[in-house]
Amino acid sequence: MTKNPSHLLVIFPNTHPRRDYEIEHVAPEFTSVCPVTGQPDFGTVILTYVPDQLCVELKSYKLYLQTFRNTGIYYEAVTNQILEDLVHQLKPRRMKVETRWTPRGGLHSIIRAEYTAPGKKKR
Amino acid sequence: MTKNPSHLLVIFPNTHPRRDYEIEHVAPEFTSVCPVTGQPDFGTVILTYVPDQLCVELKSYKLYLQTFRNTGIYYEAVTNQILEDLVHQLKPRRMKVETRWTPRGGLHSIIRAEYTAPGKKKR
Amino acid sequence: MTKNPSHLLVIFPNTHPRRDYEIEHVAPEFTSVCPVTGQPDFGTVILTYVPDQLCVELKSYKLYLQTFRNTGIYYEAVTNQILEDLVHQLKPRRMKVETRWTPRGGLHSIIRAEYTAPGKKKR
Amino acid sequence: MTKNPSHLLVIFPNTHPRRDYEIEHVAPEFTSVCPVTGQPDFGTVILTYVPDQLCVELKSYKLYLQTFRNTGIYYEAVTNQILEDLVHQLKPRRMKVETRWTPRGGLHSIIRAEYTAPGKKKR
Amino acid sequence: MTKNPSHLLVIFPNTHPRRDYEIEHVAPEFTSVCPVTGQPDFGTVILTYVPDQLCVELKSYKLYLQTFRNTGIYYEAVTNQILEDLVHQLKPRRMKVETRWTPRGGLHSIIRAEYTAPGKKKR
Amino acid sequence: MTKNPSHLLVIFPNTHPRRDYEIEHVAPEFTSVCPVTGQPDFGTVILTYVPDQLCVELKSYKLYLQTFRNTGIYYEAVTNQILEDLVHQLKPRRMKVETRWTPRGGLHSIIRAEYTAPGKKKR
Amino acid sequence: MTKNPSHLLVIFPNTHPRRDYEIEHVAPEFTSVCPVTGQPDFGTVILTYVPDQLCVELKSYKLYLQTFRNTGIYYEAVTNQILEDLVHQLKPRRMKVETRWTPRGGLHSIIRAEYTAPGKKKR
Amino acid sequence: MTKNPSHLLVIFPNTHPRRDYEIEHVAPEFTSVCPVTGQPDFGTVILTYVPDQLCVELKSYKLYLQTFRNTGIYYEAVTNQILEDLVHQLKPRRMKVETRWTPRGGLHSIIRAEYTAPGKKKR
Amino acid sequence: MTKNPSHLLVIFPNTHPRRDYEIEHVAPEFTSVCPVTGQPDFGTVILTYVPDQLCVELKSYKLYLQTFRNTGIYYEAVTNQILEDLVHQLKPRRMKVETRWTPRGGLHSIIRAEYTAPGKKKR
Amino acid sequence: MTKNPSHLLVIFPNTHPRRDYEIEHVAPEFTSVCPVTGQPDFGTVILTYVPDQLCVELKSYKLYLQTFRNTGIYYEAVTNQILEDLVHQLKPRRMKVETRWTPRGGLHSIIRAEYTAPGKKKR
Repeated sequence: MTKNPSHLLVIFPNTHPRRDYEIEHVAPEFTSVCPVTGQPDFGTVILTYVPDQLCVELKSYKLYLQTFRNTGIYYEAVTNQILEDLVHQLKPRRMKVETRWTPRGGLHSIIRAEYTAPGKKKR
Repeated sequence: MTKNPSHLLVIFPNTHPRRDYEIEHVAPEFTSVCPVTGQPDFGTVILTYVPDQLCVELKSYKLYLQTFRNTGIYYEAVTNQILEDLVHQLKPRRMKVETRWTPRGGLHSIIRAEYTAPGKKKR
Repeated sequence: MTKNPSHLLVIFPNTHPRRDYEIEHVAPEFTSVCPVTGQPDFGTVILTYVPDQLCVELKSYKLYLQTFRNTGIYYEAVTNQILEDLVHQLKPRRMKVETRWTPRGGLHSIIRAEYTAPGKKKR
Repeated sequence: MTKNPSHLLVIFPNTHPRRDYEIEHVAPEFTSVCPVTGQPDFGTVILTYVPDQLCVELKSYKLYLQTFRNTGIYYEAVTNQILEDLVHQLKPRRMKVETRWTPRGGLHSIIRAEYTAPGKKKR
Repeated sequence: MTKNPSHLLVIFPNTHPRRDYEIEHVAPEFTSVCPVTGQPDFGTVILTYVPDQLCVELKSYKLYLQTFRNTGIYYEAVTNQILEDLVHQLKPRRMKVETRWTPRGGLHSIIRAEYTAPGKKKR
Repeated sequence: MTKNPSHLLVIFPNTHPRRDYEIEHVAPEFTSVCPVTGQPDFGTVILTYVPDQLCVELKSYKLYLQTFRNTGIYYEAVTNQILEDLVHQLKPRRMKVETRWTPRGGLHSIIRAEYTAPGKKKR
Repeated sequence: MTKNPSHLLVIFPNTHPRRDYEIEHVAPEFTSVCPVTGQPDFGTVILTYVPDQLCVELKSYKLYLQTFRNTGIYYEAVTNQILEDLVHQLKPRRMKVETRWTPRGGLHSIIRAEYTAPGKKKR
Repeated sequence: MTKNPSHLLVIFPNTHPRRDYEIEHVAPEFTSVCPVTGQPDFGTVILTYVPDQLCVELKSYKLYLQTFRNTGIYYEAVTNQILEDLVHQLKPRRMKVETRWTPRGGLHSIIRAEYTAPGKKKR
Repeated sequence: MTKNPSHLLVIFPNTHPRRDYEIEHVAPEFTSVCPVTGQPDFGTVILTYVPDQLCVELKSYKLYLQTFRNTGIYYEAVTNQILEDLVHQLKPRRMKVETRWTPRGGLHSIIRAEYTAPGKKKR
Repeated sequence: MTKNPSHLLVIFPNTHPRRDYEIEHVAPEFTSVCPVTGQPDFGTVILTYVPDQLCVELKSYKLYLQTFRNTGIYYEAVTNQILEDLVHQLKPRRMKVETRWTPRGGLHSIIRAEYTAPGKKKR
């Protein structure tokens, strides 16, 4: 992946910034490639955030996720990169990314990463 | 939507105002229209509140929700508007609106917004 | 309903009053009548309590619930009345009544009411 | 409904006409209007067919189903009309339409209608 | 029950009599009374039929089922009576009534009865 | 078990003998004792039959099943004995007994036995 | 029950006493007898504890639970007695017993009792 | 596997040979080893048969299945060998073995093999 | 897709050709690309067959399915092509391919195609 | 087990050590041997941890778990040993091991053990 795909993310202003409310997008059709074996990985990406001034547009977020389709990348790296790209673009009050992966070798894995804006209380 | 449909909401006095108790109405047949594509959206609206002096009458609430049927409106705006309309009419001690949407483009979304009356502790 | 049916409730001494423990009775066959339309309502009544000196006998509780069968009464009133009748008879340390109703007009409702004895900490 | 919406259906040639195979489209977001009460109805439409020379294009089928959104029509009529419109356009070897409706007045309904081309054995 | 409640059933003409199609109504809120113990029984009534010239109107069918609310009657009798009343009124090509009852004394029961019009093949 | 418990079965006349209809009783609280280890066995007994002139009364059937509570008996023998006792008492047109057992040693078992009256077609 | 069956419980030393860890045993095949009606009761017993110096051996715990098979005892008494017997034998840091009972008269019940060793914080 | 483990199977006489009845044993804890990779395989073995003069004793069947624990063998071979060993020992009227395997490389497999005694009709 | 990927399929001899038995491989991680929109499609491929002299090796079948990952192809074409490629390589007695697709535009689709060898009876 | 198998665990540097995030690996195919009866045990091992500088490689973790396949060891010992081996190798900020076992003698067990690094707050 020579270029960060986060430029695909389209943002729009949060129309209700005075209230803390939560947006959750569940993407059960995520796929990337194992960097070691070259085999495809499949998972569900659950993004949850409390917007501040900005929200992510749904279709652009889908296209952003699709850029991982033929990328060799570990579970942990996918999860943290999605969190970082979206924190960078949206500057949310809080954000969480959870990835749930289909079984490999009889095991399945779940990765969870969270961000809390400075001055906000962690949950 | 030229006129706010919240005038359809019929309210009646809370007969047990001395106790904090919780009312939850789950409406799995909500539909509105995507303001960008003109395609119908489908979702479930979960309203939960602790009444103060007023409650919302169930049938009028259903008719209120039906006014969104041919309205072009975003997920976030629906959720916040239902919360605001009902807070305005009922002046509850606490209220929460959660909307859960059917998949679009392989993703599904959930929006959650809460209100706590001044002087009440947030949960 | 000309007479309060709570006289049907049979109580017996709590044999383990020194310990706070919890009793839950789930009654999925509750039915009453809508006071507006005259149509039958169906629901599940979930009673949970921490007894002090007294417990309610199960069969008498069932008969008590059956007295609502042909009574016209709102969801909120049923829930609060069951709580009040049982608090009055049992003087529990804590008690909660939750009623879950089958759909009407495409919506279903849940009502939750709680009681905490004076001097006990709320949860 | 002044004009039959079946002109919206786009058809394309069956690329494997020498084999009997089965196509099933499940549409859980169907909505129409009760012709008596004016209240919205919600249901799932399950279309199953063995194509002969023609198939229905998926997006046009979705748009066709959306034309019922504000139409007052009975469950039985919806089911039979969808079957007739699609049989007329596709001339399939076999076709079945099943509609499953959400509860009204505590009851829910399911309607099933089938078509078999002349000379084909019924199942 | 001094008078047969089947006079409550409203019928209307089958608009598609040339095709054998199937109508199913599921009523999960049925209740009657045990003739031995006087205790309420609760169950689900599943009516499935292939109409000939007549269909039963849904609301009248609901009111018909409600007439059993305070009637003392056995499981087997309810099932057969509903079948007979509806066969008598609708003269269907085929009809089936299944009643599924909630547990009594640790057992639950299911009763199934079918009718096939003379000259129609049984399934 | 020194005496056959089938004398406990109370029978009553089938009030609708002209129609073949089906009665199913599901008893998920069956328990007996393993004749080898002396350990309790737990299972569900599913009795399904088409009555001829006689039906079994539900409470007496429950008491009959309870007589196995402290009896040492194999899965296969329980299943065939229940079938034989009930065939003997009810002389049904058809009858089936299925027993589903909870796991023992990591395996669970299901036994199915059927009876068809002479001159009736097997299914 | 003339003699307390807790002498059947075999205990063995906790091999990891330096760490607080949790052991849960779920017994879905519990049965006792209703002291009023003489009818069998069926339930699931869920034992959860943090061991101190001692653990209970699994087979002996099963035999202990089986001693209730023909004992007439109330739900509340079973739950508290199991807790007391096991606290007495194991002297755990924390222990909880939950019993979940199959329906009787259309209601099902759940009883929960907990113990915390002196000097340990309650949860 | 140097020696066929079927000698471990203990058989006993069918006590009800005059009736065709069905016995099903479900073993969800089967494990063997992949002959290519040396990695363990996990699956469920479902054995269903109509006994003639002989039945298989449950514990011996479990021990027989355990002999595959460290054996390198393909899915198809396991399924057919279990069928052949049991047909050889029991000479049943009918027998079926189904094996359901946990996922490997994102795919899971199911194998089904049946036997019908000469002169018996296939299903 | 310039070259047919079926050359990737590795076959091996059926070790039990004298018996008709069934092999089913379920691949829930199939993905291809919509030829119209360029968007990824996701689905489950269920292959069921009765082998004659040849079986397909599991890993090679997985690699074969992965060749569709970046191929633009319709649902119907995928289903029929997989069937044809595998029939061509394995010459099975019977074979069925079912593809189940995740929702697009609120609809989801299922395609089923079957093959029966000449001289074999269809089911 | 003469030698600790934890040397099989391959570790790699945590690429995002500045953030507390959570990794969960679910292994539903765990098997070991009961040290008393010699019978195989089957369970699911759920490992959850917040990495500090090190992560465990997935395949090596699977091979590590497989070393228990023919080891005689108690539930409690397995759970604590896995926790200790992984804490020793990974020095995580937090770690939890939960083992869920299939039923033995009608009971199933769950064991949970946690570790918190010095200076980290317990949850």
